Amino acid sequence: MNSFEYCCPTRILFGKGMESNVGKQVLKYSKKILLHYGGGSIKKTGLYDRIMESLNASGISVVELGGVKPNPRIALVREGIDLCRKEGIDFILAVGGGSVIDSAKAISVGIPYEGDPWDFFDGKATADSAVPIGVILTIPAAGSEASPGCVITNEDGDLKRSMGTELYIPRFSILNPEIAMSLPPEQLAYGATDILSHLMERYFTNVAHVELTDRLIEATMKTVINCVRRILDDYEDFDAWSELMWSGTVAHNGLLDTGRTGDWGSHAIEHELSGIYDIAHGAGLAIVFPAWMQYLYKHDIARFAQFAARVWNVDTDFFSLEETALEGIARLREFFESMGLATKLSGVDIDDTRLEEMARKCTHSGPVGNFVKLDEGAVLNVLKLAL
Amino acid sequence: MNSFEYCCPTRILFGKGMESNVGKQVLKYSKKILLHYGGGSIKKTGLYDRIMESLNASGISVVELGGVKPNPRIALVREGIDLCRKEGIDFILAVGGGSVIDSAKAISVGIPYEGDPWDFFDGKATADSAVPIGVILTIPAAGSEASPGCVITNEDGDLKRSMGTELYIPRFSILNPEIAMSLPPEQLAYGATDILSHLMERYFTNVAHVELTDRLIEATMKTVINCVRRILDDYEDFDAWSELMWSGTVAHNGLLDTGRTGDWGSHAIEHELSGIYDIAHGAGLAIVFPAWMQYLYKHDIARFAQFAARVWNVDTDFFSLEETALEGIARLREFFESMGLATKLSGVDIDDTRLEEMARKCTHSGPVGNFVKLDEGAVLNVLKLAL
Repeated sequence: MNSFEYCCPTRILFGKGMESNVGKQVLKYSKKILLHYGGGSIKKTGLYDRIMESLNASGISVVELGGVKPNPRIALVREGIDLCRKEGIDFILAVGGGSVIDSAKAISVGIPYEGDPWDFFDGKATADSAVPIGVILTIPAAGSEASPGCVITNEDGDLKRSMGTELYIPRFSILNPEIAMSLPPEQLAYGATDILSHLMERYFTNVAHVELTDRLIEATMKTVINCVRRILDDYEDFDAWSELMWSGTVAHNGLLDTGRTGDWGSHAIEHELSGIYDIAHGAGLAIVFPAWMQYLYKHDIARFAQFAARVWNVDTDFFSLEETALEGIARLREFFESMGLATKLSGVDIDDTRLEEMARKCTHSGPVGNFVKLDEGAVLNVLKLAL
Repeated sequence: MNSFEYCCPTRILFGKGMESNVGKQVLKYSKKILLHYGGGSIKKTGLYDRIMESLNASGISVVELGGVKPNPRIALVREGIDLCRKEGIDFILAVGGGSVIDSAKAISVGIPYEGDPWDFFDGKATADSAVPIGVILTIPAAGSEASPGCVITNEDGDLKRSMGTELYIPRFSILNPEIAMSLPPEQLAYGATDILSHLMERYFTNVAHVELTDRLIEATMKTVINCVRRILDDYEDFDAWSELMWSGTVAHNGLLDTGRTGDWGSHAIEHELSGIYDIAHGAGLAIVFPAWMQYLYKHDIARFAQFAARVWNVDTDFFSLEETALEGIARLREFFESMGLATKLSGVDIDDTRLEEMARKCTHSGPVGNFVKLDEGAVLNVLKLAL
């Protein structure tokens, strides 16, 4: 177990109708805010009206910026920064999933920074202050609602890069599972894959003596898997959506990192896929993760066997832990496919023409991954296994 | 799953030598502090010197108040309040286990309050402000280092009562497992029992659809049990101490309460025991919990069977879940005994002379417990089963 520092101060308000508290929460910080959102689905579902009602009741004036796309763009971040400066805004309310939240995070550190906000993502600058943000979560997936992470795409170069700072961890996040229930099935599939991937990135570690976090991660993985099965069986299963939504936050709020070092190689590889092909992050992860496992499971067969036995209920073959390990990887692939996801690049119409480019860009600042360090050639091999 | 609000903002600094950061952490809040501690063991172990060195290096002036006893007393809290007011102190550093931390918490809300601090514990007043506190934890047990709870004893009436507020949740808590390793075996036993009890109080709930928190609690219980076994086998097993110490915080920082209602009847009954007989809280819990289970396991045999199977690896008897449930309770009792603890009142020289008094005081403001509500007669029956 490693030494660590851990702090997750986000206040979570979880349950039906919780968005009616947003005005009171925002009022602790500001009377004039940026309301940041995506493609406008919040207006169709009535969520927008409920939010505005609560904000109005608290006397909060609102400037709006919608239009955040999946794989959120630096161009809109720049627009948001200019808008906030012009309007004198000192609080951002993000209403959406990880893309909207990450866009809000990038704006929040960009406002007080004199340079271009992309500087934070290509390592040219480190943020030293941020405007506070709050969240109303609509998609259980990215875990950005209580994390220091932020991923932004720069269309100029098809680059998808991340940054991390405690400065913009949301002051509060409102989670109402009823809102998530209006998502289409592909969003459920992408979201659940993202959550499971966050757990797997943490699970595959070389740090020894991490029983507590191993077991906590396994507990969360099992819950995600069972809840997805229940939802696929009955899409109106509120309790399953509730547990899935809360699992998404727990998976990524830092607790499950304590004392261990996660891998994150699969995320790095996937960012190249969605950076170039603009596929959903979850869609990319369902393809990359099984290939990644196939490529390197021999690095630690015991850990993969534990994953198979404890998470996927694979009957342990004590005379061949390798068989056990491989069965676990097969179950993971089946699980992704049960949600209608492709687990091969061919399934999302990506061929081998840009694999070398992705491998090169992915390793632009050195090997990726901690469990096994992957250089350009190794990343290319993982991508080839995904064909 | 219930709706909930959750926030645990305590910054955790975990690992060897982490106490050397204390000056830097304190400096964020104050230049003049109260250093609050117990019987002085921190001076023998050298911890006191290391803390003073760090505080001095940060230019922080220190007023001391030691002498906190197990089952901390309101008398010392009053003394601390007077001292802080006289010295103009606006930060308290608690160095110790739950007793020292709770004493510091009571002082922290007492300083700005005009009345007597016991008012918070007998329900006459609610705190509305507090001086910030920080913690250096020496005993993995109470979980007070990242919780809103606080338990104080009033010798005038042998009363042990609790309060809870977010106001005094520690701003930071420093956890160095090496410090815990100097504890004598009985402190390990009391602490592990307290941690396991915090988990069991949360586990036994009537709220349905709590798969995530069920599994997270089970994960933490299994880790605690395994770590204790490892430590009993090798008292110098640093990794096992590390996992035990972090489990103690995770058990009680509120995460495992999310979406469910815990019981807390056993804690209420135990507080009467230690309030009157001044035994260690953990010693009392090891006696009360098995009796409590024996009294009411039929209320939810499925849950007790799940506890037995998932936590204690009991082979499920599908034709008699009751047998499975009872075997789980037996394993819990064996576990307590393996640490050298008594699981009967007779084992700590308590007879039946004051059982009625305890049952009456325990239920002074109504039945205790949520899983099963226990009135005066029921509490008396639990205590009789503990004889």
